[in-house]
Amino acid sequence: MFKVPDHQVAGHKAEAGKLGPLVDGFGLFYKPLQGDERGSNEVSFYTSFSSNAKIPKHIARFFPKFHGTQLLEASDGSGMQPHMVLQDLTFGWVDPSVMDIKIGSRTWAHQAPEDYIKKCLKKDRESTSVSLGFRLSGLQAFGSKETGFWKPGKLEVKSLSVDDVRLYLKRCVSSDVFGSKPDCAFASVVYGGSTGILSQLLELKAWFEDQTIYHFYACSILIMFQKEEDVLNGKIPRAEVKLVDFAHVFEGKGVIDHNFLGGLCSLIKFISEILTTPEECVV
Amino acid sequence: MFKVPDHQVAGHKAEAGKLGPLVDGFGLFYKPLQGDERGSNEVSFYTSFSSNAKIPKHIARFFPKFHGTQLLEASDGSGMQPHMVLQDLTFGWVDPSVMDIKIGSRTWAHQAPEDYIKKCLKKDRESTSVSLGFRLSGLQAFGSKETGFWKPGKLEVKSLSVDDVRLYLKRCVSSDVFGSKPDCAFASVVYGGSTGILSQLLELKAWFEDQTIYHFYACSILIMFQKEEDVLNGKIPRAEVKLVDFAHVFEGKGVIDHNFLGGLCSLIKFISEILTTPEECVV
Repeated sequence: MFKVPDHQVAGHKAEAGKLGPLVDGFGLFYKPLQGDERGSNEVSFYTSFSSNAKIPKHIARFFPKFHGTQLLEASDGSGMQPHMVLQDLTFGWVDPSVMDIKIGSRTWAHQAPEDYIKKCLKKDRESTSVSLGFRLSGLQAFGSKETGFWKPGKLEVKSLSVDDVRLYLKRCVSSDVFGSKPDCAFASVVYGGSTGILSQLLELKAWFEDQTIYHFYACSILIMFQKEEDVLNGKIPRAEVKLVDFAHVFEGKGVIDHNFLGGLCSLIKFISEILTTPEECVV
Repeated sequence: MFKVPDHQVAGHKAEAGKLGPLVDGFGLFYKPLQGDERGSNEVSFYTSFSSNAKIPKHIARFFPKFHGTQLLEASDGSGMQPHMVLQDLTFGWVDPSVMDIKIGSRTWAHQAPEDYIKKCLKKDRESTSVSLGFRLSGLQAFGSKETGFWKPGKLEVKSLSVDDVRLYLKRCVSSDVFGSKPDCAFASVVYGGSTGILSQLLELKAWFEDQTIYHFYACSILIMFQKEEDVLNGKIPRAEVKLVDFAHVFEGKGVIDHNFLGGLCSLIKFISEILTTPEECVV
């Protein structure tokens, strides 16, 4: 009944006997609790968030729905393990393109242990996190029924430069996702428009300018869209922004999450530029 | 003819035979070039900025006017030294209150030398920079002709917590700047209004959401206002936001300054809260 998710682009994967999330094929996503305090921290966040009356509805929709925890046979054969029961975000989507973007120039909380900070700071400096305020953690972009998905490997994604990230954001919304000369053919319908990605990111930004409840470290924004089906049917393509990975969420204590907000604004600027300077997309 | 500035609240001071900036009493401020690349870097910034046609006028006004460099007898008696000739920001002001706020959770540039980064990171973590996105570097707040200025010492300012910073921002606009129970009597006229501090910070924010020319590390926002004179005359008090200290400005290379922007948004949130929740100011 349980299987490995089809459209996971980053993080631990339940492949080859490893521990990772599973889906049930009916809309639920089972994420194993990480053994240390990260697992319990993420459960705490979901529990707090899903019962917090101060979260506006138009913001709650950016987060996966949470259905508690459940003991489940772990994907690595280690026996029954606690899993978070979450909404399967790509359930019902046809060939979704997905980008996993880790937000913030700093992925570590002030109060984290010293050795953990050191490890994170190194990764932040070696990736685009410090320079750009975010980094691409993984992606799959759908080309066509014939070509399938463009899904760069972990090592490739890890070594991307700022210019690469800009290019990859363009390639994902281009006709030929495999080519290095993006035409951004789908940019205006996916990134633009009143229900597009940019508009959703701006809603999120407005909330982050104000909210002082949570600080999100090492949290990712998923940009998800499906182009083929909808565009063929003459519809506006389905495009959604979601937030995932809350193992390092801490109390905001009356201060805004300036680290997340800064990175989000940087991402918004990149997406805006793709929309406003289409001439820089090679046709 | 040259003298030590009256209203400098942070940075190296030209006192007791030390090297520091001087003023001429006619509106000019002479800042000695720091010996290493910081001095030349700051001159480069001023030169580039003051001739950059892409800087909107309403943004240029936040920066001190630059009048080139000049050889001058240094304040430490070390002979003729190159100085930047800048606008004396408090020239003509009567008993100005001044807050020097170093913006950004990170005061070091990605490309800075390793030992410099280490030093900065330590200071950023020990101060409110990492947690709050900015830190108070110094301040003077005018009480009255009788009491004079409240000007906390360097050590006191260095050890401020997030809650202290919030309190200090309130005390500066209170009737009794020396008391620990602020009434925020001047908050609405200094921080609020269409020409007040908040409104100026929001203009700056809009520019930082868009500009990718410069990244400002270890740069300070000065919040300056004069309450007594103007309020007595029934006028809106003079209140100005200025940016200073550009020894660590680097090219933005097409990326917004998410580090500065995040800190600025955090400051904006604090100032907004003082305006919207006056009940939290003890009367």
